[in-house]
Amino acid sequence: MAAAAPRRAADAWSELAAGNPVVTMVDTLLRGTGQVMFQNNPLTGLLFLAGIFVNSGKLGGLGILGLATSTLTAYLLGADRTLIRNGLFGFNGILVGIGLAFFLNYNGLLIGYVILGGALSTVAMMALANVFSVWDMPALTAPFVLTAWLLLFAVLLFANLRPGPLIAPAAPDVRMLPPTALRAAATGVGAIGLTPTNMTNALFRGIGEVMFQDKLATGVIFLFAIFVNSRISALFALLGSALGALTAWTVGASGIAVFHGLYGFNAVLCGIALGGLFFVLTWRSAIYALAAAIISALVFAAWIFLLAKAGFKALVPVGLADVSTAEATLEGYRTGGAGPAPPARGSAP
Amino acid sequence: MAAAAPRRAADAWSELAAGNPVVTMVDTLLRGTGQVMFQNNPLTGLLFLAGIFVNSGKLGGLGILGLATSTLTAYLLGADRTLIRNGLFGFNGILVGIGLAFFLNYNGLLIGYVILGGALSTVAMMALANVFSVWDMPALTAPFVLTAWLLLFAVLLFANLRPGPLIAPAAPDVRMLPPTALRAAATGVGAIGLTPTNMTNALFRGIGEVMFQDKLATGVIFLFAIFVNSRISALFALLGSALGALTAWTVGASGIAVFHGLYGFNAVLCGIALGGLFFVLTWRSAIYALAAAIISALVFAAWIFLLAKAGFKALVPVGLADVSTAEATLEGYRTGGAGPAPPARGSAP
Amino acid sequence: MAAAAPRRAADAWSELAAGNPVVTMVDTLLRGTGQVMFQNNPLTGLLFLAGIFVNSGKLGGLGILGLATSTLTAYLLGADRTLIRNGLFGFNGILVGIGLAFFLNYNGLLIGYVILGGALSTVAMMALANVFSVWDMPALTAPFVLTAWLLLFAVLLFANLRPGPLIAPAAPDVRMLPPTALRAAATGVGAIGLTPTNMTNALFRGIGEVMFQDKLATGVIFLFAIFVNSRISALFALLGSALGALTAWTVGASGIAVFHGLYGFNAVLCGIALGGLFFVLTWRSAIYALAAAIISALVFAAWIFLLAKAGFKALVPVGLADVSTAEATLEGYRTGGAGPAPPARGSAP
Repeated sequence: MAAAAPRRAADAWSELAAGNPVVTMVDTLLRGTGQVMFQNNPLTGLLFLAGIFVNSGKLGGLGILGLATSTLTAYLLGADRTLIRNGLFGFNGILVGIGLAFFLNYNGLLIGYVILGGALSTVAMMALANVFSVWDMPALTAPFVLTAWLLLFAVLLFANLRPGPLIAPAAPDVRMLPPTALRAAATGVGAIGLTPTNMTNALFRGIGEVMFQDKLATGVIFLFAIFVNSRISALFALLGSALGALTAWTVGASGIAVFHGLYGFNAVLCGIALGGLFFVLTWRSAIYALAAAIISALVFAAWIFLLAKAGFKALVPVGLADVSTAEATLEGYRTGGAGPAPPARGSAP
Repeated sequence: MAAAAPRRAADAWSELAAGNPVVTMVDTLLRGTGQVMFQNNPLTGLLFLAGIFVNSGKLGGLGILGLATSTLTAYLLGADRTLIRNGLFGFNGILVGIGLAFFLNYNGLLIGYVILGGALSTVAMMALANVFSVWDMPALTAPFVLTAWLLLFAVLLFANLRPGPLIAPAAPDVRMLPPTALRAAATGVGAIGLTPTNMTNALFRGIGEVMFQDKLATGVIFLFAIFVNSRISALFALLGSALGALTAWTVGASGIAVFHGLYGFNAVLCGIALGGLFFVLTWRSAIYALAAAIISALVFAAWIFLLAKAGFKALVPVGLADVSTAEATLEGYRTGGAGPAPPARGSAP
Repeated sequence: MAAAAPRRAADAWSELAAGNPVVTMVDTLLRGTGQVMFQNNPLTGLLFLAGIFVNSGKLGGLGILGLATSTLTAYLLGADRTLIRNGLFGFNGILVGIGLAFFLNYNGLLIGYVILGGALSTVAMMALANVFSVWDMPALTAPFVLTAWLLLFAVLLFANLRPGPLIAPAAPDVRMLPPTALRAAATGVGAIGLTPTNMTNALFRGIGEVMFQDKLATGVIFLFAIFVNSRISALFALLGSALGALTAWTVGASGIAVFHGLYGFNAVLCGIALGGLFFVLTWRSAIYALAAAIISALVFAAWIFLLAKAGFKALVPVGLADVSTAEATLEGYRTGGAGPAPPARGSAP
């Protein structure tokens, strides 16, 4: 991917972003979009947005509103400029915007709710970053999860904001068993079982669902977007989605949910985060990342695997301030230059 | 309010409290009551108690029992004497006493349960103060919330302690929409809508509900009690209650709940805490406090706004050991003497 | 218990464990079993296993599988060797194994689920030990609780792993009051009320239920197992179980649940942990431990009582690295040698 033309274009953009305030702003928002999957790269962010708009203009529009609000709030409150520029206040905001748009019915008040949610996600980001700094841990998407959960639970009490059909309250049927055959819909139209078509859908929709995008084409665009920044991250996104789907299928999860990538998106994020980003990529850390992807299909686990980092000598953790791309970290580790020093016992990666 | 006569009375009381152990004890308990709304002032505490007894002798009596038990437990376990004297082990105890009395039916065993709850709130206070000290954060009313929640959930399993009608288990009606017109009761007797009477009720009951007191007169007394210690805190209590009620009304919350101040009490505490107490009062921190009050009507948010304190340069945080009144903090900041130093870049407050 | 013959046998075993790798492994696993109740002693662990197999081979077998998997995972990931040797990665693994076997129906996939759970409990142990190290706090059985909860909640979505009758979903009857008479079963066969037989059952089953063992004989064996390592811990286990049962009976908990020790097991762990282990045994810490045992029958409280440790001068906390047996800690404190130094004000224990 290090062809001369794209690199020259990237350099030209960087130069523009350094000088022109409008381009700076656009670059900041694009990096914020890329950071949803740990990719601090404006082109990745642009492709992510393209993938979202291919699926839904409503999700894209309200996502950008959350992205802009959260970033603006960080500026107004005087957050660290470098963190803002790297998109670290934007990625939770875009997720809040998409998430609220996804689960709530649209009306005029929803726009105000997304603006509020974007602003709140920045306060939550700063709060949780402060909390987790004690363990040199990133806040990841916890600010989004916290903000969106609270705002979504709240609407049950508010008549002017209505839950969409996916989260509207319903009496649970406690004897229900999930339908375990892999397929697209309850109607049973289309192929049923572990077919190439079904697995392809599970694989790519799993990547799309990281941003609530239940569409095959969007997943393909997302994967390409990651690939232009890091081939290692793209590989682990793909492996994570596959392992998540297969694990869920093995234990008898709903085959419809598996088809639509709902057991993939946590595994995708686990794979990317642990596969070369927060640990130097070695055979051991690769196995650790894939084990986490498997477990994330059963329980939400990324966090636990990251928090354990200090104690396991078999893994080489990367300091929070040193996280960049998997490739750069690996290069730094191998040359012994930038990045974490090889452990004293000199084990090869 | 700095008239000569009240000040002389206050000085005489302080002198008494320094010498006479019974007065010391009374002063400690009154400060504990005042600390429920961050007011380390025995007169504020006395007026708070008056406001509670105007509404309910049962809530007042069991509140004082919780207050005394929690403070006594802190003494017996050897907690820091200065913290005890400033009422920091009492305010969670009085809230536990009132809370249990409010939600449970009265019987002989309830007295023992309140004593246990008061003692447990002190252990919880010490535990959470220890936890939060890592971030120089106060425990606020988290010990009360934790203790009361656990003790209230527990009674569903215990035949000898019975939940009152407010928390008795009931099958939820999942299709119910809240009645959004602002009014006193479901019967619809009295004015309906955004009338001055209804807003006055929402405003003052919101201040009363900080201590479970659903009475207009009690709210008025509470506001006066805050005012004798800090005009700034009284102003932010009032603004917080108003913004909480209006926000809830805007999103279509139950108009009956708004009337009775149930969307005001969190906003009152947010307003007081962030409006000059844990941040130096500036235009920016005032806007921050009011934004938090608005959001607290939708989700519980105080905590997040406080935890973010380290990272926003637009705000001047006050060290936990330096928190006193909003006025004293502001004075110290302006003269550059006591309290936090002005930031290096010299921005005016 | 310091007779010459047992001591010689213990010394011979220690020598073997130091040299022979198979004995090292067995010793490690046995210590892991003993650590479920804070007893770093292979004989205690052996007797615990005997007590479990007396009750159920299935629980024993899957418990050992979880124990072995969690310990092996710690080795493979390069956790600290001393911690592994002291059984600190095993006790959560055996609890996960027993817990999953207890609540889920048996099938082939359950074996894989226990292996996964054991491995995950070690990652969780490292993560939580890292988190709690900030307050010099132990992770206790939190890794087990977290791992087992997540894995048990998950099965409701998975057709190939089925919940047993104890946790199968059911519509709650919100008007139900618990049957408060102390007795063995709903049929009312056998003695009813606070009889010696019923109290004996509650007492010993409470100790057995720490490891999900609902059998009188197992409780007796467990108590003896603790006794061979620490008479103080055995005494507090017994007192804890008694106080837990009596407290629950007083507030009107289900008499059947009390009979089967379900209000005893948390109290047992509170009693052991606070009675001489994490605080030097003094009259005050003994009262503190028994108060915690009482409260643990109402709400889960151990944690709070431990977290408060830094702030109460009436108690002498033991640094996490210095925790051994209650007897050794007391001896060290009295002689002023090993263990925590007496406080400067020289109060006698």
